[in-house]
Amino acid sequence: MASTFGHLFRITTFGESHGGGVGVVVDGCPPRLPITVEEIQRDLDRRRPGQSQITTPRDEPDRAEILSGVFEGQTIGSPIAIVVRNTDARPSAYEAMKDTFRPSHADYTYEAKYGIRNWQGGGRASARETVGRVAAGAIARKVLAVSAEVEVLAYVKQVWTIGAAIDPGAVTLPAIEANAVRCPDAAAATAMIARIEEARRAGDSLGGIVECVCRRVPPGLGEPVFDKLEADLARAVMSLPASKGFEIGSGFGGTALTGIEHNDPFTSEGGRVRTVTNRSGGVQGGISNGEDIVFRVAFKPTATIAQQQQTVDRSGHAVTLAAKGRHDPCVLPRAVPMVEAMACLVLVDHLLRQRGQCG
Amino acid sequence: MASTFGHLFRITTFGESHGGGVGVVVDGCPPRLPITVEEIQRDLDRRRPGQSQITTPRDEPDRAEILSGVFEGQTIGSPIAIVVRNTDARPSAYEAMKDTFRPSHADYTYEAKYGIRNWQGGGRASARETVGRVAAGAIARKVLAVSAEVEVLAYVKQVWTIGAAIDPGAVTLPAIEANAVRCPDAAAATAMIARIEEARRAGDSLGGIVECVCRRVPPGLGEPVFDKLEADLARAVMSLPASKGFEIGSGFGGTALTGIEHNDPFTSEGGRVRTVTNRSGGVQGGISNGEDIVFRVAFKPTATIAQQQQTVDRSGHAVTLAAKGRHDPCVLPRAVPMVEAMACLVLVDHLLRQRGQCG
Amino acid sequence: MASTFGHLFRITTFGESHGGGVGVVVDGCPPRLPITVEEIQRDLDRRRPGQSQITTPRDEPDRAEILSGVFEGQTIGSPIAIVVRNTDARPSAYEAMKDTFRPSHADYTYEAKYGIRNWQGGGRASARETVGRVAAGAIARKVLAVSAEVEVLAYVKQVWTIGAAIDPGAVTLPAIEANAVRCPDAAAATAMIARIEEARRAGDSLGGIVECVCRRVPPGLGEPVFDKLEADLARAVMSLPASKGFEIGSGFGGTALTGIEHNDPFTSEGGRVRTVTNRSGGVQGGISNGEDIVFRVAFKPTATIAQQQQTVDRSGHAVTLAAKGRHDPCVLPRAVPMVEAMACLVLVDHLLRQRGQCG
Amino acid sequence: MASTFGHLFRITTFGESHGGGVGVVVDGCPPRLPITVEEIQRDLDRRRPGQSQITTPRDEPDRAEILSGVFEGQTIGSPIAIVVRNTDARPSAYEAMKDTFRPSHADYTYEAKYGIRNWQGGGRASARETVGRVAAGAIARKVLAVSAEVEVLAYVKQVWTIGAAIDPGAVTLPAIEANAVRCPDAAAATAMIARIEEARRAGDSLGGIVECVCRRVPPGLGEPVFDKLEADLARAVMSLPASKGFEIGSGFGGTALTGIEHNDPFTSEGGRVRTVTNRSGGVQGGISNGEDIVFRVAFKPTATIAQQQQTVDRSGHAVTLAAKGRHDPCVLPRAVPMVEAMACLVLVDHLLRQRGQCG
Repeated sequence: MASTFGHLFRITTFGESHGGGVGVVVDGCPPRLPITVEEIQRDLDRRRPGQSQITTPRDEPDRAEILSGVFEGQTIGSPIAIVVRNTDARPSAYEAMKDTFRPSHADYTYEAKYGIRNWQGGGRASARETVGRVAAGAIARKVLAVSAEVEVLAYVKQVWTIGAAIDPGAVTLPAIEANAVRCPDAAAATAMIARIEEARRAGDSLGGIVECVCRRVPPGLGEPVFDKLEADLARAVMSLPASKGFEIGSGFGGTALTGIEHNDPFTSEGGRVRTVTNRSGGVQGGISNGEDIVFRVAFKPTATIAQQQQTVDRSGHAVTLAAKGRHDPCVLPRAVPMVEAMACLVLVDHLLRQRGQCG
Repeated sequence: MASTFGHLFRITTFGESHGGGVGVVVDGCPPRLPITVEEIQRDLDRRRPGQSQITTPRDEPDRAEILSGVFEGQTIGSPIAIVVRNTDARPSAYEAMKDTFRPSHADYTYEAKYGIRNWQGGGRASARETVGRVAAGAIARKVLAVSAEVEVLAYVKQVWTIGAAIDPGAVTLPAIEANAVRCPDAAAATAMIARIEEARRAGDSLGGIVECVCRRVPPGLGEPVFDKLEADLARAVMSLPASKGFEIGSGFGGTALTGIEHNDPFTSEGGRVRTVTNRSGGVQGGISNGEDIVFRVAFKPTATIAQQQQTVDRSGHAVTLAAKGRHDPCVLPRAVPMVEAMACLVLVDHLLRQRGQCG
Repeated sequence: MASTFGHLFRITTFGESHGGGVGVVVDGCPPRLPITVEEIQRDLDRRRPGQSQITTPRDEPDRAEILSGVFEGQTIGSPIAIVVRNTDARPSAYEAMKDTFRPSHADYTYEAKYGIRNWQGGGRASARETVGRVAAGAIARKVLAVSAEVEVLAYVKQVWTIGAAIDPGAVTLPAIEANAVRCPDAAAATAMIARIEEARRAGDSLGGIVECVCRRVPPGLGEPVFDKLEADLARAVMSLPASKGFEIGSGFGGTALTGIEHNDPFTSEGGRVRTVTNRSGGVQGGISNGEDIVFRVAFKPTATIAQQQQTVDRSGHAVTLAAKGRHDPCVLPRAVPMVEAMACLVLVDHLLRQRGQCG
Repeated sequence: MASTFGHLFRITTFGESHGGGVGVVVDGCPPRLPITVEEIQRDLDRRRPGQSQITTPRDEPDRAEILSGVFEGQTIGSPIAIVVRNTDARPSAYEAMKDTFRPSHADYTYEAKYGIRNWQGGGRASARETVGRVAAGAIARKVLAVSAEVEVLAYVKQVWTIGAAIDPGAVTLPAIEANAVRCPDAAAATAMIARIEEARRAGDSLGGIVECVCRRVPPGLGEPVFDKLEADLARAVMSLPASKGFEIGSGFGGTALTGIEHNDPFTSEGGRVRTVTNRSGGVQGGISNGEDIVFRVAFKPTATIAQQQQTVDRSGHAVTLAAKGRHDPCVLPRAVPMVEAMACLVLVDHLLRQRGQCG
C-alpha cells in the first residue's frame, strides 16, 4: 500500500468501505491557519453519496471529527487527524462477493496482490476511500486561498458522449452547483441528467470527463524534472477510482496542430508576462506560468451495474453474477470534489516546496 | 528541482544541454545483475538526435561511461553512476536567447522560478535531460527481463492527424525499428515521414501519440491508493518533455461506452484468471491483472520551429524572434525509447516493492 | 512536522496530550499477518503512566481501537489506523503555562517554530505522542516474530549513577518485568527504586540509560551508506522525548581500546560465520552480521519537576514558575517499551527493504 | 542501497574505492548561490588521505569536477553533479581479500547482503565514499553562511584515552587547523600525535571522539516527531564509517545529574530568549533554540591494522590474515570535515523545510 501523498504538505489516508471508519492525517500544514470542521464538512457533503436522485442511494452522513492538530480554531503545525465513522455497514449484502470477482472491479487484483481482501463492499478500492482525500483537500484549499488567493474549480465537461460548452476562465461555483450533475452548461446538464436516469433504469452506468481550472496560481510552481506540475497532477487524479486518462491544456487534441499553430506567443500586460493563448494549460516545462491551469480527467463508466454478468470465482469456475439492486449510474458529479481536492493537494505542496527551495 | 524517481529502484538524473555532461545515478538495483555498457548504449543510440533524416541534425555521439556499481560485469548493489559528456556545445549559437523567452519553451518559467537560467540551449528543460532516464531505463529493462520476462515496447501510433493501425498484442521490436518514424504500420509510417519532411521544409513541427505495451507483467504490481500503477505511469510519462496527455486502456475514448459495454468479463484460461477484453489496459484498481498493460502518451508539436515568432524579453519588451536554422520537426521517434524507459522504471520499482511488502 | 517514519513499513503518528486523541496509521504492513487489538494493548499498557508507584500518577486507560486494515483477525495490506482517545483532559491545570516557557521543555521552541502551541500540557511534545509509536511497534514486533523469529528486548541499564550488571545475551522478558523499574538486575533495581522514590519526595527527577538487545536478526539488514542499520536505529531512538545519546556495541567506551583489542575475529560455527566477540554490536559496515544487536540510549532527567524554577514568559519577562503538584520522577521504565517499539520499526522496515531489493 | 540523504536539499552519492570514480549529485540547492570548485576542493583537501604524517599514506589528489548545475559561477536550481576520479587503483594489492573476510570490516556483511562485493579495497564501505558527502557539505556550508551566517566547526576532542579541554563557544578554525590532529588544545594535540605515531609503529590503530559546534543556528529548525534535529544529526553522523556513538548537549554524562541540576533556566537577553546553561545542546523538543548546537561522535579504532589476525574465508575455513604494509592509524583528523559536512547537510535541509512549511 502507498497511502501517503505529498512532500511538505503530506496526507496519509486510511479506511475501507466497511469497518470502523475512514480518514486522513494531514502533516506539514502551515501553522496558524484558521480552519473549522464545517469547512471540511462542506466538501465532504459534495462528495458523499445520496446527494441527489442521480447518485448512489447509499446514504452516509459522513460526519468529520478532528482529533488533533487544531487548537482554538487554528492549525498548530502538528498533524491534523480527521476521522469519519462508517455507518452503512451491511456486510451480509456482500456475502455473494466473498468468492467471486466482479468484472472491472479490483476484487481479483487485490486477491492476487495481497492474498486476502475485505470482501464487504469495495474494501480499500471503494470510492469511500476518497473521504480522506476530500477532507485533506479542504484544508489545502484553505491554505491556497489564504496564502495566494488561488481558486480551484472542477465541473462535469462530458457525460457519455454528451459534451458541454464551458469557458474555464468564466465558470463559477454557483453555476457548477446549480444542478445535480455539476455541469455549468444548463442545456447540456439537462441532457446529461436525462441520459443518467435512462442508464439507471437500464441497470447500466456512464462515464465521462471532468475538467478543472486553477486560477491565480503564481508562476514558478512545479519541480522539474520528475515532479513537474502536470506530472504530479496526472498522478494525483490517475490515483482516483475509475480514472482512465489525463490531459492538460491542448492535450490529445493538440496533436492535430502544428508547432506554428500550437505555440503560445508571449506578451506583456501591465508589467506581467502573459501568453496570448493558453494551449500550454498554464504549465510550461513543468512549471506554472501564471495563466489558468486547465486539465481534464476521463472516468470510465462505473463497474458496478445492475445487470447479470459473467465472471469467475476464486477457484476459476465460471459464475453468473446476479443483478444488484442498487447502483450509482454515474460517478461524475461526485468525482468533481475529488478532482478539486487532488488539485489543491498538489498545488499547496508545490507552493510550500517553492517557498522552501527558492523563497 | 526534483531529480529523483522511484522508491526501491531509485534514479537521480543530472545535467543541462550545455555544460560538462548529463547522466544518472541508479540506486537500489538488485545485485548480481549481468549488465554491460553496450546494453545501455543501445537504448541511448535510439534516443540520440541525428539518427535519421527526420530527426534533429544535432549529432551527439552520447557515449556512456559507467563510473561505479558494476564489478566484473555484474551489479554489486551499490549505486550505478553513468555519465555522458556533452560535446556539441555551441553557446554562441544561443546568445540571442539570453534575454528572450521563446514561446512555449520553459525559458520564462525557469526564470520565474529560479531567477536565473542556463540560456545556452534548453538547459535542464532540454530533451537532452532524458539521457539519464534512458540509460537507467536500460538497466531497469534488464532487471525486468531477467526476473520476470517482462517486455516493454513503445511505438509511434499517430503523427499529427495520421493514425496507424497497430495490434499492441502482436507488435515486435524489428517492426518498430523498421522505419525512421518507429511506426510498425508501414503504410502509415510512409505517410508520417512525408508529412514530417513537409513540416521540416516549412520550418514547422508536429506532435502525435506514442503507444506502449508491457507484456507478461505479473499480477499484483501497483500500490493503492496513491501509487496505483496507472498513476505512477502517468506521472512518469507526463514528466517527459512535451507530453500533454496520458491514457490507459480504453482511456478518453472509453467514456463513450456504457458500463455494460465497458466491463471486462473474467474467464479462466489454463488455471489462470484472464479477462476476455482488455479495456482496463492491464490494470484494475491500480494493480496489474496480468493482461498486457497498454497506454498512450500525447506529445505536442515541438516548440522549436524555424520561423519568425512574436515574444517578449526579460524586460517585457516585445521582440521578434528570428527564424532558426536547424530544428527537429518531430520528436516522436526519439520519444519512443523515452516512454519505454519510464515504463520500465515504474515497473521495476513496483516489482521490488511488491516483493518487499508481500513477497 | 515530520510524523512519518519508515520506507516500506511506514507509520504516521498524530495527536497531542490534550484534544480528541492520539494514534497511528501503519502503512505497508505485510498482508495475512494475524494480529489482535490485545497484542497492541499489551505494549500500550507497558507504556502508559500510572502502572506503578514510581511512574507518573496520570492514570490513562489508553484503550486502542483499530479502525481499518484488519479483517477477520488478519491484516489485509491496507493501512491500519489505531486510535486512542484522550481522557485525562484538565486544561485548567495548565492555564499557568499559557504564556510561560518551562525550562528544558519544548514550550519556547514550538513557539519559535510555529508561532503557536497547544499549551494544555506538552501538546505534541508530550510523551503521550509515543502512544502511536508503541501501538505500531507491537505490529512490527509481530511481523518480526512471525517472519524471522526476531526478538527485541529493552531494559533499564542505569538510573542516575546506579548501574546494573546485565548480560544482553541472557536477559528475558519476565526478568525485565519482575520489578517496577524494568531492570533485570534485582539488586540494582532495588537501589534504583529507592533513589527514584527519594527524587519524587524531593520534587526532583532522574535520567539514565536504556539498553536494547535484538536477537536472531538475519545477516544483511541495513542500507549503506545513509540508511545504515545503526544510523536508522540512532535516528529512531533520538526522536524519542528526552533522549540525549545513542551508542551501539562498544560505543563511547570503545574509544579506549586499540584496533587490535577492538576488532572482532571471525570464526565458523556450524557452517555459519560468527564473531568471537561482539564489540561491533551486531552491525558491521551498516549491515547486520547475525550477532545480537546491542545498543544503548541515554535519557536526561525529566524536565518536569515539582520545584520552583526561574524562567521567562512570552514577553521575555522573568517569571518564577511555581512548584507543580504531580510529576513523574523517572521516565526510564516507560521508555523501555518505547525503545523496543522504535527498534522493531527499524528492523521490520529493513527486513522488507532487503527482501525487496535483494530477495 | 540507500544513497540519498535529505528532503529539500537532497544529496545522492556514488562510487567505490576502486573503479571509475566517486561523487555526488546535489538536488534542491537554492538558485543564485555563488559557488566555485575551489570552495569544494578546500573541504575535500581536508578530507583526503596523505595530508600529514599521521594519516594514511594513500595519496589521492581528489580533484573535483562540477558537471552540471552551476552556470557563470552561480547555482541555477538544477542538480549539481560533482565527480572525483579514482587514481590510486592497485587491485592486485587486494587480491588476498577476494575470499577472506577482514575482521570488523564490512566484507562479510556486504557478501551476506548482496551475494557479491567489489573486493578491490573497501568498495562502497571504504571511507572514500565520503568524498561525495564532503563535496556536498561544502555547498551546504555556503548556503548556511550566506542565508543565516551559520558556522559549523568540528574538532578532535579525544584520541584513545587522551582528552582535550576545549570551549565549544570559543574554538576557531585556525586553532583547529593548527596541528595535524585537528585538536585545538595544543598540549593535548601533542600527546595525541605522539600516541598515534606509537600506534602506527605498532601496526595498531586508535579511535576517539569528534565534537562539533554549530553557531547562530536560528531558533525553529527541526521537525518533530521523527525528524527532530538531534535525530537527524544522529542518523547523519552514525552513517559515517567507524562511528559507534552520538550524544548531544549533556549526553550520556547528563544522566548523572538530577532534573533540578540539568534543566536550563530561561533568561532574556536583549529581547531574545536565551538559556543560562546549555545542557540541552541547542535543541529542545527536537527544535533548535538559538543556542550553540554541540554534539559528539565516537569513532572506533580503525579496523585496518598492520598485524596478523585470525579470520575465516568465504567457505568458512579459518585463515590467518597477514600483516598489511600500510595503514591509517587514526581516522579522527580526517573525520573532522566529514562530521562538519553531515552537520551542514542536516542544517541546510531543515532551514529550507522550515522556510517552506512555516516561512
